[in-house]
Amino acid sequence: METTVDVPSGLPAAVPTPRPGDPRLARLSLNQATVKRWSLAEAVEGCLRAGVPAIGPWREPVAEMGLAAAARLLRDSGLRVSSYCRAGFLTGTDRAAALDDNRRAIDEAAELGAPSLVMVVGGLQEGDRDLAGARGRVVDALAELVPYAAERGVRLGLEPLHPMFCADRAVLSTLGQALDIAERFASEAVGVVVDSYHVWWDPQVRAQIARAGERIVIYQACDWVLPIPADPLLGRGMVGDGYADVGGLRRAVDAAGYTGDIEVEIFNADVWAADGDAVIATVARRHVQYVV
Amino acid sequence: METTVDVPSGLPAAVPTPRPGDPRLARLSLNQATVKRWSLAEAVEGCLRAGVPAIGPWREPVAEMGLAAAARLLRDSGLRVSSYCRAGFLTGTDRAAALDDNRRAIDEAAELGAPSLVMVVGGLQEGDRDLAGARGRVVDALAELVPYAAERGVRLGLEPLHPMFCADRAVLSTLGQALDIAERFASEAVGVVVDSYHVWWDPQVRAQIARAGERIVIYQACDWVLPIPADPLLGRGMVGDGYADVGGLRRAVDAAGYTGDIEVEIFNADVWAADGDAVIATVARRHVQYVV
Repeated sequence: METTVDVPSGLPAAVPTPRPGDPRLARLSLNQATVKRWSLAEAVEGCLRAGVPAIGPWREPVAEMGLAAAARLLRDSGLRVSSYCRAGFLTGTDRAAALDDNRRAIDEAAELGAPSLVMVVGGLQEGDRDLAGARGRVVDALAELVPYAAERGVRLGLEPLHPMFCADRAVLSTLGQALDIAERFASEAVGVVVDSYHVWWDPQVRAQIARAGERIVIYQACDWVLPIPADPLLGRGMVGDGYADVGGLRRAVDAAGYTGDIEVEIFNADVWAADGDAVIATVARRHVQYVV
Repeated sequence: METTVDVPSGLPAAVPTPRPGDPRLARLSLNQATVKRWSLAEAVEGCLRAGVPAIGPWREPVAEMGLAAAARLLRDSGLRVSSYCRAGFLTGTDRAAALDDNRRAIDEAAELGAPSLVMVVGGLQEGDRDLAGARGRVVDALAELVPYAAERGVRLGLEPLHPMFCADRAVLSTLGQALDIAERFASEAVGVVVDSYHVWWDPQVRAQIARAGERIVIYQACDWVLPIPADPLLGRGMVGDGYADVGGLRRAVDAAGYTGDIEVEIFNADVWAADGDAVIATVARRHVQYVV
């Protein structure tokens, strides 16, 4: 039976669920974090059942399955791998360990056939107010990683996070700033991630998307909803539930020349508590209603 | 007896409390919201006891006391009025009511002898994703208000709020964007508010402060602390408790030519619960420790 309610709201769906093969699903990708309770195998099967043609896996569930098995599963599934989440955290005190971990993530991305590795660059240490210094450390660390990634055919995607996360997760706060860094490197080696949740508020976002052009490695779709929950990391909403113009930003990235996947990534306790197939059905409906 | 612990932490103070007349207090102003439980009269007395030479009153406590009485109290106190908080909210559906309310706030600011009126421009209506439209309504409304304010000698201070508040409180999110709007008007009529809490994360903040120059109507001091509380409005910290480089930004506004007050504005449940004199003593200590 077709799922007919939206999650997490439980309200009747506003549009019918698109069926597998519907051309409006052609660019849709499911970021695995949206169905966090599912294993990689379950997420792949969920995508295949719903006709979602691409998936963005995360490192933890890949490690759970084993890298070789995960790579085989993804290859055999016929799904595109839209991106690989997530590396970065380059601002801490143990630089060598961070670089090692990033090299491992690059190796994994290469083995999985992921075109890009999403980089969340890291925040400030407690009591550190030297934001420029932390930002400089990001550039230095990237300079080490870029040749390694380029040799393996993995493009690094610098992800600006909402400024709400500047202190603790990413000192990269705007698309313009991400491009200032990315442009120090070849476009084939370093690009930017455009995530509607993180950039929707930015008065410069349209201009910076136009500037980004071929630097855009992935467009991630997610809505800004209120209130912000006790854990602000989980404050992301299903597309259409909030304030971000996810469709308008999709048109902007397309106008900049982007033709890649539209990857839905939602960290939200209610979404995670819901049935995975119902979540994917809602994702697909919202995609055709608000984004395509 | 001298207060020797910091609030809200309750930890021993790192520096002695500066005494009234200490030249390092010469530019310090107490924004009244920092001692929210106090009446205007109590806040004025608290400033006088501590040797804080300026105050930034809010509309609600002024209304409680009565405008004429508040104006007399402030004049007789010898305190400078550093700014008047707060008007704006220009993006809603009832434009006429918003303009009326802003005109009243301008009248009040003039009567109080406040050099500037702080403007928080308003957010999006629920379900509205037309951010550019809301930003346009702000400009339109300002065009109506500016002549009225200029005639009364009140400068409007556009305050960019942290992007975390873009949806619900202010579609003005960066200093650069505030300047783009302010520069449509004469510098004597419209300036910008630089609040360390709201702008510290911005990769462009130093450049935009330099650009702002004489447009800076007030520098507000407040720290970004974690975790963000359930009500994100109350997530502001005492200077020195968090990640914002409040002293560095003070030097930047000074380098841009700013010579005005440094107004401490902290919305924080723990600060509000503490004794007002102890709060002011902590504010004064942190000011000499981190800002002067």
